[in-house]
Formats: sequence, C-alpha cells, structure tokens
Amino acid sequence: MNEKIAIQGAQGSNHHKVAQLLYGNDTPIEECLSFDALVDQLLNDTAQKGVMAIENTIAGSIIPNYALIDQNDLQICDEYYLPIHHHLMALPGQSILDIKEVCSHPMALLQCKQFLKKHPHIKLVEDVDTAAVAKRIGKEQLKGVAAIAPKIAAELFGLDVLEDEIQTIKNNATRFVVLQTREQPIQDFNKASLKFELDHKRGSLAAMLNVMSDCKLNLTKIQSLPKIETPWKYAFFVDVTFDRVADYEKAKAIIEIMAEDLKVLGTYNNGRPS
Amino acid sequence: MNEKIAIQGAQGSNHHKVAQLLYGNDTPIEECLSFDALVDQLLNDTAQKGVMAIENTIAGSIIPNYALIDQNDLQICDEYYLPIHHHLMALPGQSILDIKEVCSHPMALLQCKQFLKKHPHIKLVEDVDTAAVAKRIGKEQLKGVAAIAPKIAAELFGLDVLEDEIQTIKNNATRFVVLQTREQPIQDFNKASLKFELDHKRGSLAAMLNVMSDCKLNLTKIQSLPKIETPWKYAFFVDVTFDRVADYEKAKAIIEIMAEDLKVLGTYNNGRPS
Repeated sequence: MNEKIAIQGAQGSNHHKVAQLLYGNDTPIEECLSFDALVDQLLNDTAQKGVMAIENTIAGSIIPNYALIDQNDLQICDEYYLPIHHHLMALPGQSILDIKEVCSHPMALLQCKQFLKKHPHIKLVEDVDTAAVAKRIGKEQLKGVAAIAPKIAAELFGLDVLEDEIQTIKNNATRFVVLQTREQPIQDFNKASLKFELDHKRGSLAAMLNVMSDCKLNLTKIQSLPKIETPWKYAFFVDVTFDRVADYEKAKAIIEIMAEDLKVLGTYNNGRPS
Repeated sequence: MNEKIAIQGAQGSNHHKVAQLLYGNDTPIEECLSFDALVDQLLNDTAQKGVMAIENTIAGSIIPNYALIDQNDLQICDEYYLPIHHHLMALPGQSILDIKEVCSHPMALLQCKQFLKKHPHIKLVEDVDTAAVAKRIGKEQLKGVAAIAPKIAAELFGLDVLEDEIQTIKNNATRFVVLQTREQPIQDFNKASLKFELDHKRGSLAAMLNVMSDCKLNLTKIQSLPKIETPWKYAFFVDVTFDRVADYEKAKAIIEIMAEDLKVLGTYNNGRPS
C-alpha cells in the first residue's frame, strides 16, 4: 500500500513538488489548507507522512512550525532542500507599467524586495498565499494586479509571466522536513534535530555547545524559542551533523544529563546539497 | 519640537499604544502600512523614531524585522514589553454559535489556538491584519464572521466582544524595540543587541558564548539568521544583559577580535518587567 503524503497547500505548490521528488509523481497526496491541518492529518492517520517547510535561506526559520512539531511529538524522518523561483505574473497583454499592485505572501515579497524597489509605482499588498492570488487574477480577470508565484501557477490560471526569477538571491532555497507520528529508527544517519531547555545560569548554553564540539558534532542551526508555559524562558532547537553515529550517541548521553528535557525531534540523513 | 514616531499599523494598534506609553498620549505619530514603510519613514527623516514589534512570548522572533534593522543600519535605542490581549468580536446580536469563520493574523490565531480548538465548527481564515478584519465586519455588516483583535477595535468599529482574553497564555507579551537612524550614545545602559558572523569551524559559537559568560554577560536571546548573500551560512543575533558597562566593553573588545563583522545594533536599558 502506498503511503499517503500530507502537503501544505494545493497541487502544484512547492510542498507538492517536494512530495513528488521524494516519493514519485504518482504518490497519493492529501492537500491541507494550513500547517495545523497537515498535523491533524498525521495525528488521525489519514496521511502517514507530511511535508512541511521549516526554514528559508532568506527569511530564516518558520517558527510556528517548530512549535507544531514539538507540541505534537512528531518525528522528522527526512529533509529536502528545494531551490525556490519567483515569477511576476499578470493577465496576458499587461506590461509592468500597467501593474498598480503586486499581491503575494509576505515571505515572497521579502524575497523579491530588490526587484520591487526598482518599480516604486507598484504598491505591495500582503496576501496569505502566493498561488491563490494568481488564481484570483485569472478567475476575476483582474487588470493592474500582478502575483508573485511559481511558474506552474501562471500555467494553471492562464497568466503571462512578466518577469522571470525576480527573487533577490538567485540560489534561494527552502528546507522542507518530512514528518511522521512514530519513530522509525534507521541504522545509519548523519544529522539530528534536538530540543533542550536550560536553566538561566550564566554560561549554560556555552557549556552545552562545548560538549557538542568536543564530541565532533557540527552545529548547523540554532534557534531559541520561547517556552509557551513560561514566558521569556527559552528552549533551544539545534541541528547537528556528524560523521559517526557513535559520536552523536555520546554527545546525546552527556546532554541528557546536563540539559533539562532533552528531546530528539528526529535522526535522518543530511539533505543539504554540498 | 516633538519628535515624530513611526508606528506599524493604524491608530489604536498595539504599536500606537507602545508609542503613547513611551512618549505620551499626544506624541505625533506616523501610521505605516508595513514594517518596510516604517523603515522608509526613518530613512527619510519623516519620523525620528520608530516602534517595531520584534518578538513574542509565543511565536518567537519576527525574523524579517531583524533583517530590516540590520540591512538599514538602524539603532535600537529602547525596548518595551507590552502584555497582549486578544478578544473575539462580531456584529452585535451574534452568539458564538452563529459564527462560521474567524479571520485574523496567523500570529493571533496561533496565540488563541486552545480556545479555537474548543469550537471546531468555526473555520479559521488567515488575514494580514487583526484590526482590519474588525473594520471590515463593521463596515460590510458581515454576519457569521468574527475577528480576533484588541478591545479598542470593537469600540472603533461597532462590534461586540463575544469572549474576553481568549489567548492561550494569559501573560502573553510582545517585545517592541524603538529604532532610530543615528546612534545617540547614553552613559549608562545594561542591555545590548549584537550581531556577528562566524566561520564554520567546529566550536566557534561555543567559544564566543564562553567569552560572554567569562565577562559576566547574561545571554537573554540568541537567534541565528541566514546570511542573505551566502545561503546556509548564518549570522547570530544575541541580546545580553549585564550589571557593569565595563564588563560589556571588555566582552565587546574580545568578540570584535574573534568574530567576523561584529555590529552593535544598540545599547539601551533592559525593559523586561522582572
């Protein structure tokens, strides 16, 4: 039986693309309107795996998603780094001078800021979804409005691409994680995501990082996140890579003693293109 | 001459409230439609100070705002911690059973998640602004729709509050920083915001935190942020508090030698209520 993969957004979205790249074009998917809904699909076992964007080269971590993974005790079992391309699109026949406003997700507007600054006559309007704007422009035949979205949205909704690749950083990428409810231990892995809490003693985070360094773990990411129950106290989410599982196991054993509430969010293989 | 204070959002917003609390009820304000616009007001000298939300007890850092401060070389000259209250509001005469959808900012929806889970008949719809939804409900007399917004929005737009204080964590607070374009050194301060970059050598962040700890600095916040120009390399934004300015100056001198590109984002007085 094929596993069903929950994705955030609709067919043709970047989440869908990642699901196809990892599990094949014919893999059954479950479209979810929000990251919350995606988690619910996993908890209900309607879907067995979920693909979730977790950080972006430009805007950094998608912080609420860290909380979702943690609070629902989900396990990260894989990751994928997808290059992101943004295109400016509008109704056929419109030129950039006809465009009075661009609507898109704040993240997409941020990622195309340099391009947009060159066209100060265009008003920027935030919307909750990139592809939904493209759909609305096509359906309501909106003149003077452009969307910033993946190319597939132009094809789906009958728009023309006015400008290709308008993202500021050409090698913009988003990191996606694959989530499941149960831990399925794998023999060999070279990356782990950990969460721990520390008391407020001076130097406690430094001590923890010293252990990781001594055990030959490379810190690839650190994210402090407020503890919801205790305002202004922080939990730390870290990603580490390593050559030998034994090194990771040793560090883990020490951290378990030193930190409060160590939680392994997942062990998996490093998906970052080198 | 009174300085003009740029705020994100409109009169009655939380940003406005912070401006009033810090600079008095009659302080001239400049309403800005986005954080980008707020920065532009400062760069143009239309406003001399700007109030910007930077992190929240529940959702963590507002990451794009860190990039705005850094890229535009703004200085943090003050901070304020404002308790946040969310209220569910709709047209007068409507009960919670009449409500079919709640529209609000994703952050507000997140902060009221527990309450909303108790009312599964209500569809959650993301919007870009909390108060704008309240305004739309009032203006278009929308039945069946509720907003999550500050109480002042109900008063302004003729809505009734259906439920008080629906945020999950009752002591939810948002940290705001006050920004200006020029550094105006103050004699005495006990908090600093720093940004530095590190090479990828194992243990380099641990070494930096050891210095801070040795110099009696307390790390209150650490945030890794991708370097825009160099995908998947990180800069670190840290906040530190200390008892003696001399301790801070010593740590700063050492970090300046050890880290690449140390930048002081601001020195100011700790505004966190103890």
